[in-house]
Amino acid sequence: MIVVLKHGVTEEKREQLIGWLKKLGLQIHVSQGEYQTVLGLVGDTSRVDMDLVGSLEIVDSVKQVSEPFKCCNRKFHPEDTVVEIGDVKVGGGHFVMIAGPCSVESEEQIVTVAKAVKAAGAQMLRGGAFKPRTSPYDFAGLKAEGLELLRIARKETGLPIVTELMNIMDLELFEDVDVIQIGARNMQNFDLLRELGKLDKPILLKRGLANTLKELLMSAEYIMASGNERVILCERGIRTFSDYTRNTLDLAAVPMLHELSHLPVIVDPSHATGIAKLVPPMALAATAGGADGLIIEVHNDPMHALCDGAQSLRPEEFSALAEKVRAVRKVVTA
Amino acid sequence: MIVVLKHGVTEEKREQLIGWLKKLGLQIHVSQGEYQTVLGLVGDTSRVDMDLVGSLEIVDSVKQVSEPFKCCNRKFHPEDTVVEIGDVKVGGGHFVMIAGPCSVESEEQIVTVAKAVKAAGAQMLRGGAFKPRTSPYDFAGLKAEGLELLRIARKETGLPIVTELMNIMDLELFEDVDVIQIGARNMQNFDLLRELGKLDKPILLKRGLANTLKELLMSAEYIMASGNERVILCERGIRTFSDYTRNTLDLAAVPMLHELSHLPVIVDPSHATGIAKLVPPMALAATAGGADGLIIEVHNDPMHALCDGAQSLRPEEFSALAEKVRAVRKVVTA
Amino acid sequence: MIVVLKHGVTEEKREQLIGWLKKLGLQIHVSQGEYQTVLGLVGDTSRVDMDLVGSLEIVDSVKQVSEPFKCCNRKFHPEDTVVEIGDVKVGGGHFVMIAGPCSVESEEQIVTVAKAVKAAGAQMLRGGAFKPRTSPYDFAGLKAEGLELLRIARKETGLPIVTELMNIMDLELFEDVDVIQIGARNMQNFDLLRELGKLDKPILLKRGLANTLKELLMSAEYIMASGNERVILCERGIRTFSDYTRNTLDLAAVPMLHELSHLPVIVDPSHATGIAKLVPPMALAATAGGADGLIIEVHNDPMHALCDGAQSLRPEEFSALAEKVRAVRKVVTA
Amino acid sequence: MIVVLKHGVTEEKREQLIGWLKKLGLQIHVSQGEYQTVLGLVGDTSRVDMDLVGSLEIVDSVKQVSEPFKCCNRKFHPEDTVVEIGDVKVGGGHFVMIAGPCSVESEEQIVTVAKAVKAAGAQMLRGGAFKPRTSPYDFAGLKAEGLELLRIARKETGLPIVTELMNIMDLELFEDVDVIQIGARNMQNFDLLRELGKLDKPILLKRGLANTLKELLMSAEYIMASGNERVILCERGIRTFSDYTRNTLDLAAVPMLHELSHLPVIVDPSHATGIAKLVPPMALAATAGGADGLIIEVHNDPMHALCDGAQSLRPEEFSALAEKVRAVRKVVTA
Repeated sequence: MIVVLKHGVTEEKREQLIGWLKKLGLQIHVSQGEYQTVLGLVGDTSRVDMDLVGSLEIVDSVKQVSEPFKCCNRKFHPEDTVVEIGDVKVGGGHFVMIAGPCSVESEEQIVTVAKAVKAAGAQMLRGGAFKPRTSPYDFAGLKAEGLELLRIARKETGLPIVTELMNIMDLELFEDVDVIQIGARNMQNFDLLRELGKLDKPILLKRGLANTLKELLMSAEYIMASGNERVILCERGIRTFSDYTRNTLDLAAVPMLHELSHLPVIVDPSHATGIAKLVPPMALAATAGGADGLIIEVHNDPMHALCDGAQSLRPEEFSALAEKVRAVRKVVTA
Repeated sequence: MIVVLKHGVTEEKREQLIGWLKKLGLQIHVSQGEYQTVLGLVGDTSRVDMDLVGSLEIVDSVKQVSEPFKCCNRKFHPEDTVVEIGDVKVGGGHFVMIAGPCSVESEEQIVTVAKAVKAAGAQMLRGGAFKPRTSPYDFAGLKAEGLELLRIARKETGLPIVTELMNIMDLELFEDVDVIQIGARNMQNFDLLRELGKLDKPILLKRGLANTLKELLMSAEYIMASGNERVILCERGIRTFSDYTRNTLDLAAVPMLHELSHLPVIVDPSHATGIAKLVPPMALAATAGGADGLIIEVHNDPMHALCDGAQSLRPEEFSALAEKVRAVRKVVTA
Repeated sequence: MIVVLKHGVTEEKREQLIGWLKKLGLQIHVSQGEYQTVLGLVGDTSRVDMDLVGSLEIVDSVKQVSEPFKCCNRKFHPEDTVVEIGDVKVGGGHFVMIAGPCSVESEEQIVTVAKAVKAAGAQMLRGGAFKPRTSPYDFAGLKAEGLELLRIARKETGLPIVTELMNIMDLELFEDVDVIQIGARNMQNFDLLRELGKLDKPILLKRGLANTLKELLMSAEYIMASGNERVILCERGIRTFSDYTRNTLDLAAVPMLHELSHLPVIVDPSHATGIAKLVPPMALAATAGGADGLIIEVHNDPMHALCDGAQSLRPEEFSALAEKVRAVRKVVTA
Repeated sequence: MIVVLKHGVTEEKREQLIGWLKKLGLQIHVSQGEYQTVLGLVGDTSRVDMDLVGSLEIVDSVKQVSEPFKCCNRKFHPEDTVVEIGDVKVGGGHFVMIAGPCSVESEEQIVTVAKAVKAAGAQMLRGGAFKPRTSPYDFAGLKAEGLELLRIARKETGLPIVTELMNIMDLELFEDVDVIQIGARNMQNFDLLRELGKLDKPILLKRGLANTLKELLMSAEYIMASGNERVILCERGIRTFSDYTRNTLDLAAVPMLHELSHLPVIVDPSHATGIAKLVPPMALAATAGGADGLIIEVHNDPMHALCDGAQSLRPEEFSALAEKVRAVRKVVTA
């Protein structure tokens, strides 16, 4: 950590600050310039409250030098992490397509969609059993029954299942789920993240609506610091002033996350845009931009979907898209 | 709900849509204009997926006419709600000052601060026992012990206590807490909100970092629809591009929420700005703008605070501020 | 325009509003529902101040039915516009690569870069002679001399030149410039836009930092309504809370603008990200997402560039990128 | 400027960078820590492209130590600037109320409003003659005739006039205008700012929709560096995801700007909210938060205003507000 002192600070006040910092167990390197004094703090700076130091009368500014994330930091783990779910691999050159309906609605629906997306080349099945809804009056998912229907679809197709967990207390229902998804609204549900760290199961962690990349990585860090290193990051759009689409897909996050971390990064163009006809161009863009995979909503009958029908592709649309995705992927990895 | 059809839609397609909407149990009023056809939907439109209808080929746009929130809607409950906590009242002309440290750190600290803020005119004591932290490596609060220390401070001063709950599983520890605070990151933790609806205890609900006023009210709706009508809303800053302050305090939310809802609205200038010297002007601004109260961080020794020292006032600063707050309040309610 | 009245409005007040609207020359269709009354306004609603009507005591809400942009609206002009600059075509299936340095610095520099980008397949040369700079103390471009150097580079390579105009008073200097670029900060410099409408010259109009797609189209409308229909739109990133990149590239704007308008849409990944190593993935993403072209900063010696060196590609990097762009373009237009 | 090098950089590369920086005329102080090397750059660092240095392979990060604004920086000019317009003073303890219609519409209108706001205590008259409008089809002001009507209103009331300039070429029409207003959309119209620096006339500079405080101060710097030190800053709302109000009023900008700069700071609650009934609470909030003045839209007949009627107060509403503003001002300056 670097602390820049204001011009004209008295030696007494400077020594007082240095004394206080030393009591926190740090070594202090003083660099006295003509116009400013810079303190370099060496040691475990995680004990220092950056904002507090920055607020002191004699301090001009404070700068963190090392990133606060460790386990997910590429600096300490240069090779890409490959997350394996049965035979499916994600990251490190392995690209995954996950598809399925927003909500599981019936056995017929989920099995039909599962077969269709498998035929189109998807390697995993998504489907919500527990649904976070802004309104208490909206359909909130079939819950345990929905999980049961997902298991049936898995049995019928062999596709591993990805589904969202909202609440620690439901955890035991998810025992044989292949990948647990943590939604944008729970990205900073820290107690939940800590519990996930105790599992031996991949976690699909979605970026929150208003979270920075650093915050996303700190949430991955919660899971990893508790022992579970199988984390897949997911960009799904952020909230901005722009109002034509539900969210603003921040695709530059993909190469930036790859720079900062060794974890795989996939993209959800369905929630990012909220509009079915924008899903194919954004899925292709994400692929070209280096994503390690896509998670896409597909419904056999969007007109009668119980949620998010507006952003769902029909199976034949998904199939046409999947083919183009593979072709783009081939070009960018050539 | 109003559905505007595109120009030139065939009668067949129009009738198909009307048929589908009728099956959802709605009555449809058709208004045929020269350039457009407008469908007015009457009945329980909560079953209709607005986004889906809006995405149909023949639909130009959809507009929701009635707000989706009922229990907290001023239209159905014109008088201000007054939330009572013992002798303390909030809303409907009653102004409250809540003060205390970010985190409870020790008996001496919390009792000292409690006495100081009481002497300065605060009517409730705040203090965090369970702390949400971006980093898994940061101090996360004294937990059960912190709650115990708050009880001691309450006993010593008579001030009711306000403290944050992060996790349903901790609920029983909060049995004798006077007001449960739900932080910005949990504003859309829907399962948690539902549980709070079953309590007979006031809830201080903070607006999320990137949540609209409608979403805040829908979260209040979750609590109220489950039976608990004692909700206090709290504006605490939103996330924007602006980078000088930690968040951007959205003060216009105060009169706007009063327009939309009968619930009391208080303001947290400490978290909104993150900078101690901005707290007094923003506390005064919130008061002048019509807030029903303030929640302010006060620490007897900000230099040694375990969290958020940078935004904490010293007791004497709080005391000077409280006096001005009362004077401003007197002017605006004259 | 649709005006929804509040529940329980008296007939007298309703008739008063209708009378006022009729005086503005509109026809009013009244649709009386059980819970609300909806007024459909037919005629030239551009004279009606939507915000004013919406603020009236008896009005619940107002909704604009027809878009306020006409000339650039795809509804009235279903075929793609193809903008021609000499032999170069943009839009309607024609893809363009524009490349060159942020600033023109010397004859040697601009000619070297022009030759290199031409060899790599670029069809137009970009280069700033008049530079908008946040600080009055920064290098603001070579101005008239810079334009002269661009002309030399054009002569040497045959590449048409694209360069930014900031000020109406400089317009005559731009007489033989091939494409005039209007930067993000001038997107709503309405007097300037109107002047551009009188020219017979293509305009490259960049989206402002905080402008919606509708506002971008309204600015195109300023140019087109004054008579110049040769407008190329450019997405170059918007300002959000996200702080790892200079701006947030909003790629979904590309297909959305294609839906709303017949004008070509290109993407500037250099300004959108501000980081050279993010330019290739975002250029490929933009191509896959359906952009009609790219505008990319290339500098032969980024270390000594007078501005924006951090986001410039070296010629060899651009050449490798251009090849991949062509391959991706081939896949998505197959 | 502080440059932090990456861990493990070779001495050769380090010396190469130091050599390059020295060639730019800077002195370099090297501080070698255990984990990192920090370079302190002393001299005229305005020649160094921070982004470029930050993008180098061997550099971890770069931090600017001194603010890039000089003339408006409080560090170099600790006393508040007081801008005088005839007898009216703004800043340094002097509070100003500016009021009037959005647009000048007729002699009767502007004179009536001018007399009314004067009677209510306003010290200056605002009124738009040149109006920036998003749509080319909207009313754009009476232009020269509007300025003439403002002069008549000034003659009738003695109130100095404040009106917006959009275009350098109109400058001579503004010769006897008392204060030239630069709107949000022109905050970074740098050529215009430079011209304003040559005038001997106060400039009211509004913050752009998506501009940081630093950018606002850099724009003030353009004016001041060209010789005109009479700049009044104006916060008028920023663009965020929040959609209930037209913009989000960022009131913490007021004390923050006072901290950074010696220039007066006023607030425009009319444009910030766009909703008349939110103007009084936000005007009072701004006053309590330490603003040096207010600029408020007042119209004698908002229903027939040619623009922004929705946000205009009636004269009697303004009069009631002005009285409360004075009372709040008295409390906060006591």
